[in-house]
Amino acid sequence: MLEQIVNLLETKNYPALKSLLNSLEPVDIAALLDEAPQEHLLLLYRILSKENAADTFVEMDSVSQEVLIRSFKDNELKAVLDELFLDDTIDIIEEMPANVVKRILQQSDPETRVKINELLNYPKDSAGSIMTIEYVSLKKDMTVKKAIDHIRVTGVDKETIYTCYVTDSHRKLLGLVSVRALLLAGNHTLIEDIMETNVIFANTLDDKEDVANKINKYDFLALPVVDNENRLVGIVTVDDAIDVMHEETTEDIELMAAIVPSDRPYLKTSAWEIWKKRIPWLMLLMISSTFTGKIISSFEDALQVCVILTAFIPMLMGTGGNAGGQTSATIIRGLSTDEIRLSDIWKTLLKEFSVSIICGLTLAIVNFIKILVLDKGDIIASGQNPITVAVVVCLTLFFTVTIAKLVGCSLPIIAKKMGFDPAVVASPFITTIVDACALLIYFEIAKILLHL
Amino acid sequence: MLEQIVNLLETKNYPALKSLLNSLEPVDIAALLDEAPQEHLLLLYRILSKENAADTFVEMDSVSQEVLIRSFKDNELKAVLDELFLDDTIDIIEEMPANVVKRILQQSDPETRVKINELLNYPKDSAGSIMTIEYVSLKKDMTVKKAIDHIRVTGVDKETIYTCYVTDSHRKLLGLVSVRALLLAGNHTLIEDIMETNVIFANTLDDKEDVANKINKYDFLALPVVDNENRLVGIVTVDDAIDVMHEETTEDIELMAAIVPSDRPYLKTSAWEIWKKRIPWLMLLMISSTFTGKIISSFEDALQVCVILTAFIPMLMGTGGNAGGQTSATIIRGLSTDEIRLSDIWKTLLKEFSVSIICGLTLAIVNFIKILVLDKGDIIASGQNPITVAVVVCLTLFFTVTIAKLVGCSLPIIAKKMGFDPAVVASPFITTIVDACALLIYFEIAKILLHL
Repeated sequence: MLEQIVNLLETKNYPALKSLLNSLEPVDIAALLDEAPQEHLLLLYRILSKENAADTFVEMDSVSQEVLIRSFKDNELKAVLDELFLDDTIDIIEEMPANVVKRILQQSDPETRVKINELLNYPKDSAGSIMTIEYVSLKKDMTVKKAIDHIRVTGVDKETIYTCYVTDSHRKLLGLVSVRALLLAGNHTLIEDIMETNVIFANTLDDKEDVANKINKYDFLALPVVDNENRLVGIVTVDDAIDVMHEETTEDIELMAAIVPSDRPYLKTSAWEIWKKRIPWLMLLMISSTFTGKIISSFEDALQVCVILTAFIPMLMGTGGNAGGQTSATIIRGLSTDEIRLSDIWKTLLKEFSVSIICGLTLAIVNFIKILVLDKGDIIASGQNPITVAVVVCLTLFFTVTIAKLVGCSLPIIAKKMGFDPAVVASPFITTIVDACALLIYFEIAKILLHL
Repeated sequence: MLEQIVNLLETKNYPALKSLLNSLEPVDIAALLDEAPQEHLLLLYRILSKENAADTFVEMDSVSQEVLIRSFKDNELKAVLDELFLDDTIDIIEEMPANVVKRILQQSDPETRVKINELLNYPKDSAGSIMTIEYVSLKKDMTVKKAIDHIRVTGVDKETIYTCYVTDSHRKLLGLVSVRALLLAGNHTLIEDIMETNVIFANTLDDKEDVANKINKYDFLALPVVDNENRLVGIVTVDDAIDVMHEETTEDIELMAAIVPSDRPYLKTSAWEIWKKRIPWLMLLMISSTFTGKIISSFEDALQVCVILTAFIPMLMGTGGNAGGQTSATIIRGLSTDEIRLSDIWKTLLKEFSVSIICGLTLAIVNFIKILVLDKGDIIASGQNPITVAVVVCLTLFFTVTIAKLVGCSLPIIAKKMGFDPAVVASPFITTIVDACALLIYFEIAKILLHL
């Protein structure tokens, strides 16, 4: 479809282009524009109908948004900004370089500029930074009919009208009422008689991940956000909560794979930027595997006598890494979805310990048989007793799996206790520790049983 | 709080218990009940108010639900079933053993039973299996006033009233209209004049993950589901879509960590069941690392001459595994969020190739310096030339990183092309392949440069 569009553009068939683009949903137009050549971007954007333009702009990625803002005339930029919800404006501003932000603020009307500056002051990743201030507020002495009329008049500019918030004259949150409840109630019923007073809310400074988890847990369409004096200052809607869950999950997966998280879309990130996100951990882990190397060097004499031991190192390290990675992934995901809480530490450790014992035993037994069936020849050729070697390898395997699972379980919990993201200590980090343990155990057992 | 509840229960202070439990949100009551001793479960459930009981039941985990269903009297079970939305009933049924399902069906009224059986026939993970059939349908010649009256009368039993679907007499989907649009339109406007006709929908057989992605992409509160004749048969609401995203992400993370995915809550899963989910991959990967061992044995003579080479094996394998893991995690996440599409294959491969070259170079250079500074003594002591050894190690490192990133990038894409979940080929699997490549390259280069 992109080819078709560029084709229409180059043949200057604007009417066909216009009807083609405007037949799509804004998010689909945005995806096409994101992939279009940057020199055509402004022209394509100008072809959009007024209803689609702002909605499309919000859905585009920050690279395209920046190109557009830089090429907009002042009145075009102003027109877009007037159509945006404030939380979307904030999202855009947060991704832009300083000079673009300055232009955005210049083109906003003074009242909006004050609100933008207020919202920008909330810490990154806080509820305040993702909330919208465009919500419906009702008074408790309104009748249902008056409330519905109020929604009819003011609802156009609100991000959601389906949950309305009841506040007193000091903007303190008293309760909430859904449009569903309004429609199902009689016209003359008072709001205070149907409002839900047991309101679940967030504070402006709460972590946005907690906000998203609450919306998910209670199946809300929106969550009210209050300040330290319990005044209602905004709401977070379910679509924004989904975006937060999405980002946080991607961040967790990146951290677990030893990548410095990034917000930019992968296909639009340059190789150098990707390098910057990946090299720190690769470097750190490479340097730290020096210790593993040192352990091997220090047992060099033993290895020279019994080179066959080297052949089992990859299996031991690999299995240890996999066993630890399974556990850390389970625990990290459990912690981030609140399925495992810090109070469950001992329960979790005990469970992982049991699992590690039976996993370790199973693997050790299978491996013992495998060595005696498949590797017997190699071991005898190297002048060792196959059964003794098998015992050394399988004892090591058992202890490595047990240690790997306990390390994989406790490190994320400790990280969380210390206030870090548990995903930071995920498998690559744990693998490095487990590798060192595996080798130490291996050589110590070998020295004793093989008399090296 | 659980202690307090058990305490109130044991002292038979039921009034206090009742007011304590009923002051909470159903999902919070459910979390408490899930952790309560099973012998108290029925009593605690019976204490709940009628409004809270069914909502709490839906939110409990399947283990507790089964305990309750088994201990319910027939009329109690019937009362719960009557209160549930059909999609929730289906979710519960899917987790229960056959005899419990039989009891549920016996206690449902005949009309519901027919619908349950219809819904159960949709394939697992399809849109049909998660949709609800309780939606609001309007006719295009209704006025706004009539539509609102219709919602007022029929809305109580619907899962959402905020998006209403316009169908013809054959139940064909003509359009949709939001309650917001209804409220903002004049009373006498016709539905067909305000309905959105460019409707995005899913087919009953679509994958539920696609449904969730659509709801996320278009910021919908619900997505209509049609059958092969384009008749509207149900809707999927945003809260269920969030649950699907959640499950799918957990499944991806489990697969990426080489665990067979499971729906059961971790803390309620026995060690044996966890073992069953983890041992297949551990075993497979352990057996496949036999190849890596065989590669080492086959170079045993070379190693005996130059044992110092062994010291770098963990670093080479570790770095290769991490480099491949970074790429595969990025690609798998990109594919599952639709950020990377199959049409982007070449773009993606080219990008990963560039990244791998600069990552490989950086790591090789740093490692070269590290070897000459830190490991020089060990190498000289083992009778080798430090510079030659450093060249062997760093050349291997460079090629390993490049291969790891290309394997990490192409395997998930190939898996997706072949119709598998890309997460299946994630890092543990890739690591095994990369390990073997790393060792082969290492020994071949060593044989040439060190004349082994």
